[in-house]
Amino acid sequence: MDNVTESKVTLNNSKLIDTPVTRLFNIRYPIIQGGMIWVSGWKLAVAVSRAGGLGLIGAGSMSSQVLELHISKAQAEWDGTLGVNLPLMREDAADLARIIVESGIKIVFTSAGNPAKFTSYFHDNGIIVAHVVPSLKLALKAQDRGVDVIVGEGFEAGGHNGYEEIATLPLIPRLADNIKLPLIAAGGIRDGRGILAMLALGADGAQLGTRFACSIESSASEAYKNSIVGAKEPATILTLKKLSPTRMLLGNFASECIAAGNSGMNAEELQQLLGEKRAKRGTFEGDLIEGIMEAGEVAGDIKDIPSVEVIISELVTGMILAAQKINSLCTQEI
Amino acid sequence: MDNVTESKVTLNNSKLIDTPVTRLFNIRYPIIQGGMIWVSGWKLAVAVSRAGGLGLIGAGSMSSQVLELHISKAQAEWDGTLGVNLPLMREDAADLARIIVESGIKIVFTSAGNPAKFTSYFHDNGIIVAHVVPSLKLALKAQDRGVDVIVGEGFEAGGHNGYEEIATLPLIPRLADNIKLPLIAAGGIRDGRGILAMLALGADGAQLGTRFACSIESSASEAYKNSIVGAKEPATILTLKKLSPTRMLLGNFASECIAAGNSGMNAEELQQLLGEKRAKRGTFEGDLIEGIMEAGEVAGDIKDIPSVEVIISELVTGMILAAQKINSLCTQEI
Repeated sequence: MDNVTESKVTLNNSKLIDTPVTRLFNIRYPIIQGGMIWVSGWKLAVAVSRAGGLGLIGAGSMSSQVLELHISKAQAEWDGTLGVNLPLMREDAADLARIIVESGIKIVFTSAGNPAKFTSYFHDNGIIVAHVVPSLKLALKAQDRGVDVIVGEGFEAGGHNGYEEIATLPLIPRLADNIKLPLIAAGGIRDGRGILAMLALGADGAQLGTRFACSIESSASEAYKNSIVGAKEPATILTLKKLSPTRMLLGNFASECIAAGNSGMNAEELQQLLGEKRAKRGTFEGDLIEGIMEAGEVAGDIKDIPSVEVIISELVTGMILAAQKINSLCTQEI
Repeated sequence: MDNVTESKVTLNNSKLIDTPVTRLFNIRYPIIQGGMIWVSGWKLAVAVSRAGGLGLIGAGSMSSQVLELHISKAQAEWDGTLGVNLPLMREDAADLARIIVESGIKIVFTSAGNPAKFTSYFHDNGIIVAHVVPSLKLALKAQDRGVDVIVGEGFEAGGHNGYEEIATLPLIPRLADNIKLPLIAAGGIRDGRGILAMLALGADGAQLGTRFACSIESSASEAYKNSIVGAKEPATILTLKKLSPTRMLLGNFASECIAAGNSGMNAEELQQLLGEKRAKRGTFEGDLIEGIMEAGEVAGDIKDIPSVEVIISELVTGMILAAQKINSLCTQEI
């Protein structure tokens, strides 16, 4: 922090880094908190937005009643920028979409499904739509369907993941060169250096999940948070590939998934192995044996569980230090 | 190029970006050309070093006689900085090491094996040793064994790859925070934006493979180069995981490897499927059916086959533009 204090930066009440994403969402920093099942309720989302980023309520693990409750609690505490992440594969996605519209939320991040589904409906109600994709192919499809922002999420990301296994580093410049929309990078980013690197690659902002999952305001269990902080490299595995590729912390059930993959189990058998509610049991209830704890590859690198305010402050500091480093490496005026 | 011409940069005869890696190797740019079997002979290595980077002769596909010939041809053409990449798993690695020492080469990049093997021998002969690792665990081991530089190579990289599947974006900050040696980032980098992003993450330089494989001076077949330029996303697959994880272009033999993996084949069966000389047949002889064409995830993004001089010039331009972009995004003095 010393270097930052010594430089002449005022972090409050001004935009430090100005991009199409900060302008579109009217946020101070190009930092988005990813929607995470059993992790990102109203408390986490509000804390992130209040600290100058964009917080997303993760509807993926919520019934329509629970989502309604979380939105109304958030709105009682905070009247600024706030979004909801809506996984489109949900059978009751239309109900969730209606609740979002009726609540007055103006930013939706859709994922895991066809972006054509509700984009017009959201647009008709003045909602900005960002769509999460793992490849250029799906980004171009989402752009054609009229979404407003692309989130390019690489192989490193926690939870549900693309089949193509494209890592964030090759994905982001590919998207930046081939799509016309504002671009957010996701997967493998945990600090300010990472955010600055994504801006250098052509992104207009960065989405972080696992870093925010390990915050005081995250609704994940203490066992989940402590498992991430204590994780040893390689920390996670992308598994269940024939069913729906999912990145999770290594552990008892992850080992069962790896063995199942190695033995050549098909999708149906994997579905039977998976059963139900494992993410809730792992992430929310802290069941280390039978549960799944979704997390990104950066899990092993996160060493603390601070408040969101501290996290955002450190992210911004890290961005500044990385920008200063780039400047200092350049031995002549550029 | 316009932006660069307009700024006041002189690219020639000066170090544009000064890092521990440019100083150690006495090179103008923090750009290393990865050693690649059947691709990086003396012509490619000399062209890269002459253009201001560090070129590596890839010994992996060479007999000791052929390596001797390549080094002597290189030295007849060029008396500056030059290195050799030595895969330590080679049965005749000791012969290759002796040839390197006797030739007067002063930089060796070791990979795929125990860095303790020849490091003292190389040091006794005034040779700088860099070692390629896929994880922090192996980086710490290499540091303990006395190597001088760490190359952190992520999941995106072509050819032989780590078992841990750690992508470059999470790997590089992890290494930067935990090792004391100069650090080179590898895997998933194809342009100047990528190099600058790696510097922001804490690396002191970047190693590129597939980009240089698609150059006039590369000794790969035209069929290989054209296959990369024509590759469609996701372009490559990391396969043969139970034998030795290898990233290759999608194609006929890659499909056989995928099917073998899905069916649960063990290492012995995979070795039988692999047989011999597939990399030579694919990369060097251009056999699209029975050959293997090793390549990184960026394969689909490379669109041309220019000279190394043009490639390096574009990489440097890209670095400058990315640094300028970072500066322009910051709305206040940092």
